[in-house]
Parts: sequence; structure tokens; C-alpha cells
Amino acid sequence: MNKVDLFEQIQKKKSFLCVGLDSDINKIPKHLLELDDPVFEFNKQIIDATLPYTISYKPNIAFYESRGAEGWISLQKTIEYLKEKAPEVFTIADAKRGDIGNTSKMYAKAFFENMHFDAITVAPYMGVDSVSPFLEYKSKWVVLLALTSNKGAEDFQLAKREFAEALGRFGIRSTRTKLLYEKVLLKSQEWATDEQMMYVIGATKATALTKVRSYVPNHFLLVPGVGAQGGSLQEVAQYGMNSQCGLIVNSSRGIIFASDGTDFAEKAGEKAKELQMEMEVLLRKKGLI
Amino acid sequence: MNKVDLFEQIQKKKSFLCVGLDSDINKIPKHLLELDDPVFEFNKQIIDATLPYTISYKPNIAFYESRGAEGWISLQKTIEYLKEKAPEVFTIADAKRGDIGNTSKMYAKAFFENMHFDAITVAPYMGVDSVSPFLEYKSKWVVLLALTSNKGAEDFQLAKREFAEALGRFGIRSTRTKLLYEKVLLKSQEWATDEQMMYVIGATKATALTKVRSYVPNHFLLVPGVGAQGGSLQEVAQYGMNSQCGLIVNSSRGIIFASDGTDFAEKAGEKAKELQMEMEVLLRKKGLI
Repeated sequence: MNKVDLFEQIQKKKSFLCVGLDSDINKIPKHLLELDDPVFEFNKQIIDATLPYTISYKPNIAFYESRGAEGWISLQKTIEYLKEKAPEVFTIADAKRGDIGNTSKMYAKAFFENMHFDAITVAPYMGVDSVSPFLEYKSKWVVLLALTSNKGAEDFQLAKREFAEALGRFGIRSTRTKLLYEKVLLKSQEWATDEQMMYVIGATKATALTKVRSYVPNHFLLVPGVGAQGGSLQEVAQYGMNSQCGLIVNSSRGIIFASDGTDFAEKAGEKAKELQMEMEVLLRKKGLI
Repeated sequence: MNKVDLFEQIQKKKSFLCVGLDSDINKIPKHLLELDDPVFEFNKQIIDATLPYTISYKPNIAFYESRGAEGWISLQKTIEYLKEKAPEVFTIADAKRGDIGNTSKMYAKAFFENMHFDAITVAPYMGVDSVSPFLEYKSKWVVLLALTSNKGAEDFQLAKREFAEALGRFGIRSTRTKLLYEKVLLKSQEWATDEQMMYVIGATKATALTKVRSYVPNHFLLVPGVGAQGGSLQEVAQYGMNSQCGLIVNSSRGIIFASDGTDFAEKAGEKAKELQMEMEVLLRKKGLI
């Protein structure tokens, strides 16, 4: 799937919503637990109910891995169901992998060959050769962690530049030092274009989006953290939307766990529709639909 | 397992070797492929042959994950075999995970509860709340990526401090700015002590070990990259060994793929013994045995 396909789908569905399948077996409705594969059944019903309102699904691999081989079977069945039911949606393995070359190659095989995901989230810490094996799949995408929405983002991604700040106190202003997430945005553009790379940008840092866009005006950004993590969709659109939308906004718990009763799928559909309608307004305001 | 147990085992076996179970199904001897679970059979024979010479095993999760549910079964059986046959060895899941809190919690469950690993490798990019769920298991270890042995380490871990360097050209020397891997070593000490945290330090940067030791004199370091990745064991011991050894040196391909014939286990045992004997000399030189 390329950028044009993605934008077409956004225009068609009037949505840039991604539904996060963080399908924790301890949180899914109890009546499903007597079925053979409760997590797959949960995902299937969530997909059926939300599909009109979303352009993307993002299973969070930890919730499958925590159930061992059984979890992998649920994941495999979910991606197969998606590919059959809705081959046009953009599937992201939220795996945050990244290792030396021969190891990343194996992770790429797992998610791109065995499971046919369109994209995988990758951690940048180990640099170019940890990311490039994923880029060898020309029609697939890397979604690189840049600025995440959690508290720990302060530790390294936004870590203070002590020296530059010390100079700042003497009125000397440095424009040459960069925060780590800025370095990631800059450096990684040497590895791939906006046709193969996207970035994770935490929604709770919406004002930072202006800065992000100064580095990556044309890239798609995967924005988690709208909803349960507290980000604002309006702000994200205001600072982050570009002429091809350039945004995929994820919501997980706010949609999939909207109800824990037998009406869970219906309620998930309603929540997804609410977000889609907000998104439609924002796309219209920007003149994209 | 605590530091004292680990040091006792090092003294007993006169070794600080970790065998990396990067058990790629495409590289294991062909005669195993007709068995029900070739990868588990391979691991079992490698473990039997190398156990006298090693204190630790480190399955690289990518090589299991790339085989889906089947791979997870091989992994599960391998860790169960290790726990039964050699409960004293230190088992590391080389997974390089790290995500927001509720997700890291699921990864911790996968590797610490379901599979009973003693340790897991974790990527630091997302900061404190991506690491702390692993630290809630008090008898378990986090092995945090600090300075890796691959080319991409230059991209961020060792990225140049442009501003400090620009000042350097005017004769102004900064002692306040730190490289990213140094920040990781410093910051992460606020999260856990040397009884629960170790660091990945790439062997091919042996001279950097002096600097590493100035930050973390007492921590254990997991050193990959001896052998196939080209590091020198002598240098690692010279710059990295402390009064409790403080080193776990990994070799993967150099041991497990020493032969691809029916003698693969025997040859792996020989390679492990060679390294153990080198390590015995180094431990003796330091007066630790």
C-alpha cells in the first residue's frame, strides 16, 4: 500500500482513524471466554463493527505474546481475517522491535512474510542496520518511534540539553543542538523516504507537532494517545495535518473496551463513529474532502 | 537469582560465558529437520554439550517469533528444559522489548511469568515507565541496551554533540554534555540498583568499557559480539572485569553453528570449552578464582 492508496482510503471513509487491537484477554467480555478462541472472536466482532469508520487496525503484539503460542494463533487468525474481509485497510503490527541486522531480518520475516502486515513499529535506538532489514520490503512500511506519549519520553527523547541550557543563561542561544527525537526524525530520512517510513508522534505533545512538521512535512504520522492517554484530536489536526492528511490517529481502549457486556461490539462501533465524525469535520475544514 | 548466586556460578564453572540460542531453522543441521520439533532438538543437544562451560543461555526471540506459534512452542520447551536440567543457569530472553506501561507489563508477563526467564533485554528509548513494569518482578533482571556492537550504534547512542564540538574548536571544553548511551547509564540508575539491572555493552567498543565502568562500576554487563561480531575477549576482561567478574560474555553463531553436520553438538561443546578456558585464565589473572 502506498501513500496515494492511503489518502484515497482516508477520503473515501472520511476518517483517519486506526483502531488499536490491545485485546487483553482479562478485559474482554466474560461471555466470550467459553469460546475456542475468545480473543479472535472479540477482534472479529470489533472489526465488523468498526470497519466503516476506520482505515487501519493496529494489534499490540504484547497482548498476544503474553498468551504464548495460543496468542500467536489469535494474532495470525486476526490478520488473516482482516486481509480477507478488508484488504484495503492498513494493518500495523505494534511490535516496537529493533535489533542487529540478522535479528531484525527475522522480525521482518515474522510480521511481513508470515503475517502480511503492511507496517511495523520499530524502535530507533540501535540505528540504521536495525531498521534497514524492514525497509527491504519495498511495499511495506516502518513506523519509527520518534516522540512517544508516555511520561518516560522525558528521559531521553526530550532530555534536556544541559550545556546548551547553561549557555542560554548567559544569553547564548544554540540552534545547533537537537533533542533526541529531532535527531531521529532527521537521521532516519537518510534511510527511507516518506513512501516507506512514518513516525510515532505522541498526541499529548500536540504543540510539538509544529516542530515535527518542520522536519517531516510530508510524512504520515501515527498518533497514539487520543482518548485513554488524553490527547486532543483538534490539536493534532491543527498542528499535524498536511495536504494528504498525513495523520493516522489511533484509539485503543476507548473503542474496544467501551462496554464489557454483550453489546461490546455495538458500543465500539458507536465510539469509532464518533471519532470518524469528528475527523470528517477536520478533513472538511482542511479542504481535503 | 541474585548477584552473589551469579558470581558463585562463575567461580564454580570458571566461566562467564553465555551461549546465544539464535537457533535459525534455516541454519541448523539438515538431519534434524525430519524431527517433530527440530529447533527444540537442536537447542537440547547444544545445551547438553555446552552446559559444563557456560553460566547462561540467551535465546534470541526473533528466531522463534519468525516461526509463529510453532516457534513459541520451541521456545517454551527450551526454557522448560533449561529450568529442569540446569536450574542454576541464568536465562536471558533477548527480546529488546519496551513500550508504554500497560504494554510492557504484558511483555513482562510473557517472559517472566509464562516462561520463567531470569532476565530480559529491554530498549531504553521510551524511558522509565517502559522499563519499570519489568522491575516489579523483584527476583528478575532487566538487561538494558546501552552501547550496542552494531554499526547503527553511531546513529544515536554515540551521536556527535555538534554544539559541544563547535565550542571545542574555540578551545571551550564541555564536561556537561553526555552521549546518549552515557545518559542511559546515568538515568537508569534512578530506576533500579545493580541487583536488578545489567547493561548491554558491545564488545567491539572495548576501550569505551573504561568509561562505562566509571558510570557503573558494580553492575553486570552483558557483552555480545565476541566472535562473529569481532570483539576481543582479552580487551573486554581488561577494561570491563570487576571484583565480582561483572561480565557475561555472549557468543552465538560461533558456538551453535560451529558445524552443520551430525557432530554439531560436539563441535559446539568444543568451541564453548575453548572460550571457557580463555575465561578461566582471565578470571585467574584477576584473582577471582
